[in-house]
Amino acid sequence: MSRFQVRDPEFRQRVRESFDRQGIMHHLGAELTLLEPGLCEICCDFRPELGQQHGFFHAGVIGTIADSAGGYAGYTLMPHDSSVLTIEYKMNLMAPADGRRIRARGEVIRAGRTLVVAKAEVAVRREGRWHDCATLLQTLMTMHKKPDGGTASGSDTRRDDPAG
Amino acid sequence: MSRFQVRDPEFRQRVRESFDRQGIMHHLGAELTLLEPGLCEICCDFRPELGQQHGFFHAGVIGTIADSAGGYAGYTLMPHDSSVLTIEYKMNLMAPADGRRIRARGEVIRAGRTLVVAKAEVAVRREGRWHDCATLLQTLMTMHKKPDGGTASGSDTRRDDPAG
Amino acid sequence: MSRFQVRDPEFRQRVRESFDRQGIMHHLGAELTLLEPGLCEICCDFRPELGQQHGFFHAGVIGTIADSAGGYAGYTLMPHDSSVLTIEYKMNLMAPADGRRIRARGEVIRAGRTLVVAKAEVAVRREGRWHDCATLLQTLMTMHKKPDGGTASGSDTRRDDPAG
Amino acid sequence: MSRFQVRDPEFRQRVRESFDRQGIMHHLGAELTLLEPGLCEICCDFRPELGQQHGFFHAGVIGTIADSAGGYAGYTLMPHDSSVLTIEYKMNLMAPADGRRIRARGEVIRAGRTLVVAKAEVAVRREGRWHDCATLLQTLMTMHKKPDGGTASGSDTRRDDPAG
Repeated sequence: MSRFQVRDPEFRQRVRESFDRQGIMHHLGAELTLLEPGLCEICCDFRPELGQQHGFFHAGVIGTIADSAGGYAGYTLMPHDSSVLTIEYKMNLMAPADGRRIRARGEVIRAGRTLVVAKAEVAVRREGRWHDCATLLQTLMTMHKKPDGGTASGSDTRRDDPAG
Repeated sequence: MSRFQVRDPEFRQRVRESFDRQGIMHHLGAELTLLEPGLCEICCDFRPELGQQHGFFHAGVIGTIADSAGGYAGYTLMPHDSSVLTIEYKMNLMAPADGRRIRARGEVIRAGRTLVVAKAEVAVRREGRWHDCATLLQTLMTMHKKPDGGTASGSDTRRDDPAG
Repeated sequence: MSRFQVRDPEFRQRVRESFDRQGIMHHLGAELTLLEPGLCEICCDFRPELGQQHGFFHAGVIGTIADSAGGYAGYTLMPHDSSVLTIEYKMNLMAPADGRRIRARGEVIRAGRTLVVAKAEVAVRREGRWHDCATLLQTLMTMHKKPDGGTASGSDTRRDDPAG
Repeated sequence: MSRFQVRDPEFRQRVRESFDRQGIMHHLGAELTLLEPGLCEICCDFRPELGQQHGFFHAGVIGTIADSAGGYAGYTLMPHDSSVLTIEYKMNLMAPADGRRIRARGEVIRAGRTLVVAKAEVAVRREGRWHDCATLLQTLMTMHKKPDGGTASGSDTRRDDPAG
């Protein structure tokens, strides 16, 4: 049983549809591999296009996957007619992301009505084992009454004006 | 005249070659548009593959470009036989990255022998003007005696062991 | 002329009164030395009670001063019947804070209706010169309709519920 | 049994002596309440001098305690002739620190030879229960061959020059 309250029983479908609308996830080849209340896991296999100069996963790819995992962990707990925005995140890269597959596990730390704090732990698969390589801490904002799939324009999703 | 000391007169070529080895930069369509001592600018045009669910640049793409701009700003000041690693960064997303082109300007704040602190300002081009959309603050590490183009393996680029 | 819009012409008095209510500022011996729209400077002289184990200003003191300088820079732009909360901050300590006086200059980077992003630059006075020693990046929240001097209780200043 | 390797069997005494040399810890009234390999807990009772304008613990006090808890967690694992420096930290303030006592639990996430990544969880005691109020993520540096109690001067503890 989750320690979080789910406001939208259809959260899995809502999050998956949002994930599918993210062009960058397709472009990286990322997959949504786990979705529970307050929890989201995203994985991605290595390809040279995702690398930095030493052939490891680029920090930006790690950040993209980790930010999305944390963000969607938060989005599982938001209302059906909301969308989610990342206000800020901080990531520590602790070891080279040297491996064939990367996995980011996002988890909500605190869910407020508007602000959500989440973290993500990133590991890389090498020689049959997962090795921790990065950790992320982020602040998310619930955009109330702005459904993710809506015809949101720049002007109505200003992240600095949550109360509209 | 730069306020920074350049240790490698061939820094421009060295940074460009490193940039060219980063698969992800090609994959995103990013260009290195400016390179001075302690300064690096990277730009990227919008394509749906770089978007999030509302059609703006994805936070991960912004982070990738900004992290690289700050990292290469730092790398301009490092010795010829070194490579650069991002230890950590923090990014604030201040407005939706709604536009046709994104630009990250990385700048060194403090250059130590091993640790370098850099920032990056990110703006997006919309209706003929640049709009600030994100700011990044990061810590870099100089990997001495580990040239960027070398046959670096995971074990000899452990970022937690700079003194080897 | 400031690039920021001031909503409360009495902002100086409002910020000074809030500063005076902060027990910790008295305890550290901190002074509010400059206050302009979107800008706030706080200084503090060294005493052994503010030190770490090497006799420099403790990182926590630097953080306290810098967080307050950024926070009050943001508060200058907020409405008269609001209060300010720090949601998060990140600080890089770039050199030992070895000196007789410390100065934090907070500055607003972006002022939204509810969220404000600010930075603070910290320098320490040694041998007649200011030396940069830290930089801070933070996210603030405007607590609308919750005056700073009011009888705020924990329950009505939950920072996760700005819309009340 | 700890998952970390202890290099200095006298680490408890070494850390306690360093803690005792920190003027700010006495000034705040902070106590070192737990010390294990990779773990450090610091507590502090509320007094008006530690407050912000609403009578809660000031964010700077929270940061001071949390930074020290993480830093000393890291220092437990460092060699006997080393000292510890905070390179940077990021803290999310998740709820008002409204209570009579505050507790920060620092824990090492990854211990490298020179760089250590640690976190700290902060809770406040109110009505007989601990309430989470903040989380911190930080990067520490081991200053090899620079004992904490030595006559360190500014010039020989430059945090940007770990290899001397």
